Amino acid sequence: MSLDPIVEEKIRAAFYAQAFMKTIGAEIHGVELGRAEITAPLGEAFLQHNGVGHAGLTFALGDTAAGFAAATTMTLEGNVLTTEMKINLLAPAAGQRLRAVGRVIKPGKRLIVTQADVYSESDGKAPIHVAILMGTMVAAHPKT
Amino acid sequence: MSLDPIVEEKIRAAFYAQAFMKTIGAEIHGVELGRAEITAPLGEAFLQHNGVGHAGLTFALGDTAAGFAAATTMTLEGNVLTTEMKINLLAPAAGQRLRAVGRVIKPGKRLIVTQADVYSESDGKAPIHVAILMGTMVAAHPKT
Amino acid sequence: MSLDPIVEEKIRAAFYAQAFMKTIGAEIHGVELGRAEITAPLGEAFLQHNGVGHAGLTFALGDTAAGFAAATTMTLEGNVLTTEMKINLLAPAAGQRLRAVGRVIKPGKRLIVTQADVYSESDGKAPIHVAILMGTMVAAHPKT
Amino acid sequence: MSLDPIVEEKIRAAFYAQAFMKTIGAEIHGVELGRAEITAPLGEAFLQHNGVGHAGLTFALGDTAAGFAAATTMTLEGNVLTTEMKINLLAPAAGQRLRAVGRVIKPGKRLIVTQADVYSESDGKAPIHVAILMGTMVAAHPKT
Repeated sequence: MSLDPIVEEKIRAAFYAQAFMKTIGAEIHGVELGRAEITAPLGEAFLQHNGVGHAGLTFALGDTAAGFAAATTMTLEGNVLTTEMKINLLAPAAGQRLRAVGRVIKPGKRLIVTQADVYSESDGKAPIHVAILMGTMVAAHPKT
Repeated sequence: MSLDPIVEEKIRAAFYAQAFMKTIGAEIHGVELGRAEITAPLGEAFLQHNGVGHAGLTFALGDTAAGFAAATTMTLEGNVLTTEMKINLLAPAAGQRLRAVGRVIKPGKRLIVTQADVYSESDGKAPIHVAILMGTMVAAHPKT
Repeated sequence: MSLDPIVEEKIRAAFYAQAFMKTIGAEIHGVELGRAEITAPLGEAFLQHNGVGHAGLTFALGDTAAGFAAATTMTLEGNVLTTEMKINLLAPAAGQRLRAVGRVIKPGKRLIVTQADVYSESDGKAPIHVAILMGTMVAAHPKT
Repeated sequence: MSLDPIVEEKIRAAFYAQAFMKTIGAEIHGVELGRAEITAPLGEAFLQHNGVGHAGLTFALGDTAAGFAAATTMTLEGNVLTTEMKINLLAPAAGQRLRAVGRVIKPGKRLIVTQADVYSESDGKAPIHVAILMGTMVAAHPKT
């Protein structure tokens, strides 16, 4: 379902204001109501000692995709924070880039239950499902 | 309990070989049997849009501390991989640095259950408990 | 995908040998490769103080559906045990019965990642999604 | 820390009003501010096919102990509901009874982070740590 362009613009602005996402070279795509997609290159700087992407990178992308998926269900002033998130790692994060697809399982005024799937991709190959995340976002409204 | 110096050296070498840990400026301390401690500065590059540390950074430190705590229970050739990890975020990751304390809850030949607590620290202030993690490491033995 | 009738028979026998499932009046249905479905009445004996089904009942059904879904991927002699499972509760477990649908996310020789969705049902009404579970089963092979 | 006797009485009453807890023969003990303890016999009716306690029983006791620990931090009118809970199973639930010890990790007005440890006990033997749970309770206030 397509999104109000003002909300979409707010979400893109919030995403690109995240220093961490900028540091890892991440981009946001496919923002729809209850859904957001993030990609990032599997750069040298984020590997672990065995040469595959660090679980912390996979988590960061999945959690961020889930968070922005939840943010699409909020008003223009609202924001979300992760309160808890679980990751199950399914395969090593090897390849050229990671793609995280976040979606809302259950919207809510105060708590939003989300899921994210993370895939590793390499040109000319089928994507590999590397992780699944499930967690809760808390709606944060600005104090006035 | 103190650790065989050869195992301790292997653990330090594996830690400093992780590009991701180097990128965030992390250091490993307090390695004992079933325990490891990691600190990292709360640098600009790892914040999220509201100016506090990204949940991905907190997760990466907690998960890594838990993994190295588990690694202390392995033989010299063995290694561990996270298979699942859950984080509950307790407070914003604000301050000068984060400290993650990982420990083994239940050792095992194949599966090692671990916990980690992450604190934010600022000089002259009491540390703040910002997250608790609980998850499972899988023992990985080199193929011969 | 349909299942070898001998494996299906083994799964039904194992299910009906569980005293706990018998105690709550649960039934197993829809066993396919990587999938199992369990229903149970929302009986008086399993409510909590506010009159809805106890989270422990919802968990037990979801975990059992996930476990039997995993069991369909095992050999005739093998068995599975839950090693970790997380539940997110989405709505109160009110209604006439609960239905848990378990499925395998990632099969494996040693670890099987599973998911389960639990719905509450009442005749003549649309089912309500009351919980989502995600967890890991460990393959247990008989010692010889 | 000891508890206001009126709050303690409210908690005991709420516990013994839970049909599920009555069905499994559970008792509540050791209620203090931020802490509650529950025991239940490992009765025939709650075993699984391999003769040990069903994970659903272990979960139910741990989740309930965590919930009542959280309830000690609420006002007389307030109540709590589990929103998410993860269990890591450490050892088979064999023995004469289970004991679940719940405690509050982080109190809060809206969200309360809790932990529970479950032990199996047999007369004359050391208790065995069978499970650890970590999850979030939501404060529920009566509508007026």
